[in-house]
Amino acid sequence: MRYLMYITYDGKNYSGYQKQPKGNTIQDELQKAIEIITKEKVTCVASGRTDAKVSAYEQPVHFDIDKELNLEKFVRSLNGILPPDIRVLAIGESDLHARFSAKKKTYVYKMYLSDVDMPLCNGYMRVPTDLDFKSMRKFCKLIRGTHDFVGFRASGGENDSTIRTIYDARLRLDDGFMYFTVTGNGFLYKMVRNLVGTMLAIGEGKLVLNKIKKTLFNGYKCTHTAKPDYLYLANVEY
Amino acid sequence: MRYLMYITYDGKNYSGYQKQPKGNTIQDELQKAIEIITKEKVTCVASGRTDAKVSAYEQPVHFDIDKELNLEKFVRSLNGILPPDIRVLAIGESDLHARFSAKKKTYVYKMYLSDVDMPLCNGYMRVPTDLDFKSMRKFCKLIRGTHDFVGFRASGGENDSTIRTIYDARLRLDDGFMYFTVTGNGFLYKMVRNLVGTMLAIGEGKLVLNKIKKTLFNGYKCTHTAKPDYLYLANVEY
Repeated sequence: MRYLMYITYDGKNYSGYQKQPKGNTIQDELQKAIEIITKEKVTCVASGRTDAKVSAYEQPVHFDIDKELNLEKFVRSLNGILPPDIRVLAIGESDLHARFSAKKKTYVYKMYLSDVDMPLCNGYMRVPTDLDFKSMRKFCKLIRGTHDFVGFRASGGENDSTIRTIYDARLRLDDGFMYFTVTGNGFLYKMVRNLVGTMLAIGEGKLVLNKIKKTLFNGYKCTHTAKPDYLYLANVEY
Repeated sequence: MRYLMYITYDGKNYSGYQKQPKGNTIQDELQKAIEIITKEKVTCVASGRTDAKVSAYEQPVHFDIDKELNLEKFVRSLNGILPPDIRVLAIGESDLHARFSAKKKTYVYKMYLSDVDMPLCNGYMRVPTDLDFKSMRKFCKLIRGTHDFVGFRASGGENDSTIRTIYDARLRLDDGFMYFTVTGNGFLYKMVRNLVGTMLAIGEGKLVLNKIKKTLFNGYKCTHTAKPDYLYLANVEY
């Protein structure tokens, strides 16, 4: 029997989603809690791994188990056992594979515009107020479509193909806050953080878009990686 | 020489704005920092006191000093000395009295709708998803105008007149979050928290609006006080 859950977490204090030798991952916490309830060892497969400190508003996770679960009671028990920074939003039976069946993933990077660090902006990265928003928006347009994103992959990435399709990428300003939202069919290792880092380097004038735009998918090697603390997996579509 | 500053703070770890025998207030931190810079003892008068744990997006504070300050440098120094949860946004010379010249104050109470506690909702109060929003909005309408709010004043309040004018009160729902915003010419002790508490009690069916509406400004005694943790002073107009 396969179950698909949607979870949300504040990743600040974790080493990412995926199980690691040194522990302290979202997967560890989920599997521990499920074992306490079901007395069975399960493997919780997420839509993808998230980097250390990255959070998720809604991440799908599946697991297989030879038991029929009382779903309402199961979710209540899980949420009672899980640490407060991880919660199960919903669960259902499913044939989907959380990772391989995923069609679209959306990430959001949250920022605020200020020349000094601000209280009441936890979870948002401070960026300068005088960014070149026009060039940053041009960059968002340029990355839409199907391209070879090898220049945005961090070393350590293990993917075979580095071609990805970006369905949408946009920058939204709202009352002193700034949101970069990107939807794609998948992302290479640290690719979202490298897209944000490149966009901000363009906004700050450290990179000149007109000079690098021809190289972005042919020769570019990103050296500006945005911090993981302000990155949120927003949702995954099947 | 009088200076008017606008400050912002996360009040979570403080006992409110105003100086107290047991210390740990925003005023203490401000005055300490100004004394370090100017070698003078000043009194920082805010637009009003905020309760313990209440935060401010933008609160005006004035102080008098017999010195001409290099304002740009002064703010930079202050922000370098103040703890990270308090920041000065701006400063200027002024004749205004931060408290007595204030014409309008706006507070926001931030909530999220969920049946379980959620990560990534720090600073927002969890409220049930099945609230009676229609009655809550009727309550917002009822409190607009000039009324005797004595029933919404906590004991310990020292104000003479309990008549206040509410220029606006509204409830906004936005993608799972809920904001109660209220603008008035002034508020009695714990009045905003009592307005929120009453509104939520109506939303949850603990109070029936049709039964209490005739008593609100004539005989009502609020026993539902919302927690201070999710209350924010948004701004003050002169």
